[in-house]
Amino acid sequence: MNADKIPDIIIGRLPVYLRALQRMADKGMRTTSSQELGEHVGISAAQIRKDISQFGEFGKQGTGYSISYLIDKLREILKVNRMWDVVVVGAGELGHALSRYQGFVNRGFRVVMVFDNDPSKIGTKIGEFIVEDSANMVDRICNANIKIAMLTVPASSAQFTTDKLIQAGIKAILNYAPVSLNVPTNVRVQYIDPVSHLQRMTYYL
Amino acid sequence: MNADKIPDIIIGRLPVYLRALQRMADKGMRTTSSQELGEHVGISAAQIRKDISQFGEFGKQGTGYSISYLIDKLREILKVNRMWDVVVVGAGELGHALSRYQGFVNRGFRVVMVFDNDPSKIGTKIGEFIVEDSANMVDRICNANIKIAMLTVPASSAQFTTDKLIQAGIKAILNYAPVSLNVPTNVRVQYIDPVSHLQRMTYYL
Repeated sequence: MNADKIPDIIIGRLPVYLRALQRMADKGMRTTSSQELGEHVGISAAQIRKDISQFGEFGKQGTGYSISYLIDKLREILKVNRMWDVVVVGAGELGHALSRYQGFVNRGFRVVMVFDNDPSKIGTKIGEFIVEDSANMVDRICNANIKIAMLTVPASSAQFTTDKLIQAGIKAILNYAPVSLNVPTNVRVQYIDPVSHLQRMTYYL
Repeated sequence: MNADKIPDIIIGRLPVYLRALQRMADKGMRTTSSQELGEHVGISAAQIRKDISQFGEFGKQGTGYSISYLIDKLREILKVNRMWDVVVVGAGELGHALSRYQGFVNRGFRVVMVFDNDPSKIGTKIGEFIVEDSANMVDRICNANIKIAMLTVPASSAQFTTDKLIQAGIKAILNYAPVSLNVPTNVRVQYIDPVSHLQRMTYYL
C-alpha cells in the first residue's frame, strides 16, 4: 500500500465508515456486510468494497466483515489508534463548544490548549482549560510538538493566525473561518462551513 | 437541465465554487478562469469546466467567466437567490454560536427560531432570539412553513428530535450530532462532524 497513491476522496470516506462501524459495535453487533454498511452511510456496497480493498483483504465473501477487526484496521490506516493533541485557536462560542466537546477523546483526539488574543478572554476558564495569550502560541505549540489545530478566529484574522500556526509546526488545520487559507503543500486544511452544506441541500428543495 | 440527473457530488462542489467566486468579487475582481478558480478551491480546471457545463454555457473560450454572472447563475441553481428561514434545535454552546453567526444572511439563510427542551434555557435570550420550548416546535415550524433545521442536540436525542422535525415539514437537516439519522427519501441530511475531518488529515501525518 502506498499512501500517495490512494485518492483523497477515498481517504475522506474512511472516517464515515469508521463512525458507522463504531455505532454498530456500540449496539452490540459483531459482523456486517458492505450492503448493510452502505445503507447506514448512503454509499453503494460496490463503492465500499472497492474503497476498503485498496488497503487489503478485510472481509470474506459470504461472511462479510468482522466489525471490530475492520474498526481496528481503519483506525490504524487513519492513524487514530493513538491520541493526537489538538489546540483550539479562538475562544469565542464555537471555540468554547469545541474545547468542551466530549466526542473527541474516544475517536483519537484531545484538546490540550486554547488560545485567544482578546485580553478579556485570556486567563478565563473553559472547563478545565485556561485561555492562553496567542502571543505565546508559537512557542507553546512548538515546545509541545503539537501538529493539529482547530481555527475558530474571525475570517479577517484567519490567514495571519494560520501563518503563525505553520511557523509553530502545525501540519493539519480544521478551519471554521469561512475563508480559503493559503498553506504550503505539506500542510493539510479541512473546511467546516455550514452554509456550503445548507446550499447543497437547498438545490433539492 | 434535469435536477435528478446531476450527481450529488457535483452539486456539493457548487457551494465551494460560489464561496470562492464571492471572495474574488469582494476583492474587486471581475473575471476569472477555471484555472484560477481551481487554484483557489483545490480542484482541477477540467473538473470545474465539466461541473459548470452541466448547467449551460457560462464562460467563453479565451475570456473566461464573468464572476458576477457566474455568481448569479450558481445562486440561481442552488436556489439561494432568495432568503431561507432556518431553525436551530439545541441551545447549547454550538446552538448559541450558530444563532449568532453573521455568515448566514449574505449567503441565503437566516435563523428565525431557536428551540430547546431544557427548562433552564427556555425563555433565555440568545442575541435577538428567545429560546422556545421544543414542546411547541412542531406547530411553530409547521405554521411558519420552515423547511430547514440545524440540529445541535445531544446524540442520544437526535433521532427523536429528527422525527419531530420531519413531522413539522422540515426537508433539510444540518446535523451536528455525531450520529447517522434515519429519514425518508424526500428529506436531505448533511453531517458536520469535526472528528471525521480531523481523521481525514491524520492519515497524512
